Amino acid sequence: MIPVKSYAAFDTSSPLRPYEFCRRDPGTTDVLVDILFCGICHTDIHQARDEWGGSIYPMVPGHEIVGRVAATGTGAIKFRPGDAVAIGPLIDSCRVCPTCTEHLEQYCIEGYTGAQNGYLRDGKTIAQGGYATKIVIDERFVHRVPPGMDLKAVAPLLCAGITTYSPLRHAGVTKGTRVGVLGLGGLGHLGVKFAASFGAEVTAFSTSASKEEKARRWGACQFVLTTDQEQMAQNDSQFDVLLDTISGDHDYEKYLDLLALDGVMIIVGIPPRNPQVKLFSLMKNRRRILGGTIGGTKETQAMLDYCAENNILADVELISIDEVNAAYERLLKGDVDHRFVIDLDSLRQPAE
Amino acid sequence: MIPVKSYAAFDTSSPLRPYEFCRRDPGTTDVLVDILFCGICHTDIHQARDEWGGSIYPMVPGHEIVGRVAATGTGAIKFRPGDAVAIGPLIDSCRVCPTCTEHLEQYCIEGYTGAQNGYLRDGKTIAQGGYATKIVIDERFVHRVPPGMDLKAVAPLLCAGITTYSPLRHAGVTKGTRVGVLGLGGLGHLGVKFAASFGAEVTAFSTSASKEEKARRWGACQFVLTTDQEQMAQNDSQFDVLLDTISGDHDYEKYLDLLALDGVMIIVGIPPRNPQVKLFSLMKNRRRILGGTIGGTKETQAMLDYCAENNILADVELISIDEVNAAYERLLKGDVDHRFVIDLDSLRQPAE
Repeated sequence: MIPVKSYAAFDTSSPLRPYEFCRRDPGTTDVLVDILFCGICHTDIHQARDEWGGSIYPMVPGHEIVGRVAATGTGAIKFRPGDAVAIGPLIDSCRVCPTCTEHLEQYCIEGYTGAQNGYLRDGKTIAQGGYATKIVIDERFVHRVPPGMDLKAVAPLLCAGITTYSPLRHAGVTKGTRVGVLGLGGLGHLGVKFAASFGAEVTAFSTSASKEEKARRWGACQFVLTTDQEQMAQNDSQFDVLLDTISGDHDYEKYLDLLALDGVMIIVGIPPRNPQVKLFSLMKNRRRILGGTIGGTKETQAMLDYCAENNILADVELISIDEVNAAYERLLKGDVDHRFVIDLDSLRQPAE
Repeated sequence: MIPVKSYAAFDTSSPLRPYEFCRRDPGTTDVLVDILFCGICHTDIHQARDEWGGSIYPMVPGHEIVGRVAATGTGAIKFRPGDAVAIGPLIDSCRVCPTCTEHLEQYCIEGYTGAQNGYLRDGKTIAQGGYATKIVIDERFVHRVPPGMDLKAVAPLLCAGITTYSPLRHAGVTKGTRVGVLGLGGLGHLGVKFAASFGAEVTAFSTSASKEEKARRWGACQFVLTTDQEQMAQNDSQFDVLLDTISGDHDYEKYLDLLALDGVMIIVGIPPRNPQVKLFSLMKNRRRILGGTIGGTKETQAMLDYCAENNILADVELISIDEVNAAYERLLKGDVDHRFVIDLDSLRQPAE
């Protein structure tokens, strides 16, 4: 067994605090990874505080993981010690069902194994995430980080990145597609970057006028202040695709009205209250609503390769592990530019 | 001006009663149609009783119209007197916008003109529907009824038919598609017939076990009693397409769970309360929700031709005009087998 230092939540309300536990020894096709960076996703807060129900404690959050391979099992062939690798929310699946066979393991018929707040496939070992010094994982679920990338800015690609890249690709976003991105946080800022890189005409929607300059820097060619009814009305029925990344309660009808004929609203933000869909808005223009979650192993690797080729990285603010509780509070206020990433070296000092 | 006899609603609660008004003289490309049959759609009741707001009185409902051409304008070329024709909810549009040019007039950028409860494009003449002896309409919005069809059973195809045919086609339903039809009323029974005729494996869902025999006769190969939790659980994630025709309030999440990877729920029923969509259900299996409304002129004609070739007709119960108020009450109780159709000859007697 491999001892690991981490930060964990122990109940719904206490701050995260240090926690030591053991990872399994690497099996035949496993790799042992020294974690360098881990992004903070809003899901971490929801689950640490049991806002979605069913939380399992102690809980080490973290599913936007970048690190270096420290050791490999005897049958592992994808990586060598020292390789820069990345791990996302998907850390295992049944591997044999039709969707797994198509590398859509996130839709595994048995359900995929998440990096945190669940059990490994033995049904009893708690899956502990990336606010930790090490992780052991089957190589199938480990992605290669192309050379030359800024590793700390890669971490958020593993969840915020693939969660926006995958549905934008699935919806066929390409040159000239009129894409609106709703909300400009961790997911939204990557959504703007991806859609713009695909050649789309991107409009950024926000309640905060101060985000316009950054949105244009990320690739938006238009900015709409959602509190301005006139601007919203001018954009009625003007979009082919909307990427809704807003994690707070909001009026879905107002945004549905922005969709042109056969337009699709992709929902990737999860507000506390489920959306009410006004059917007359949905029926007008034959609109669609599309759900989705992260990406499979093949697409996640493709996304990383695409980011390397197209110079797409997250905008990150690096923190040390002892700042994690303060970062949670700041994230809830939207006070982050645009994704917190934990430097796990801060957890290794001084012991290792 | 052409005098017309009809039945109209005069306020939100009184029974419909006789009403005489005038249609315009046929313009250059208009046709004058003697109405033979008109179906009763649930929308007629919603609008007669102002349940969706904005009702305009007096209101002659009716948008599932079959009749014979009585006269044509000097520039009308599609029809000759005596031709059997059909008219649906779409009676006019701007005719020149990109969607109209593609014969998707139901999504006209200016909004299409409905057969009832609105104004003609002059902005002041009330559009009066098909519970009437005659109608005058531009030939573009008139459809040819192929020879040999039972005209009374054609009427419901103009709304209930196209509203199910169009989205099933749009969703790509074909041989082997696993289709579930939710609700087996006016729309649902045609949904089963269409999907089965496309080669789909159709499952009929109903709260009423007594509908199984009929559903199998329409082409369903499986029947699920929605009140039986075990049957519902067995069908979890088993469908490519769900056609939701239920017009009463219901639990959308329960049905969303039936969708397999990339499955789509088509919503064509309009319950009093708008659906709440549980996002975790939507995100699982990358599910989609699709709205839509009726069909354009080209597709409506294609649907009628398809019905003639494939012997698809509505199951109808013929009534005389003085039974219309009783029929409304029976429809609200689901006591109809499966669409009421008014015989307009009953309105012509004895005066014409």
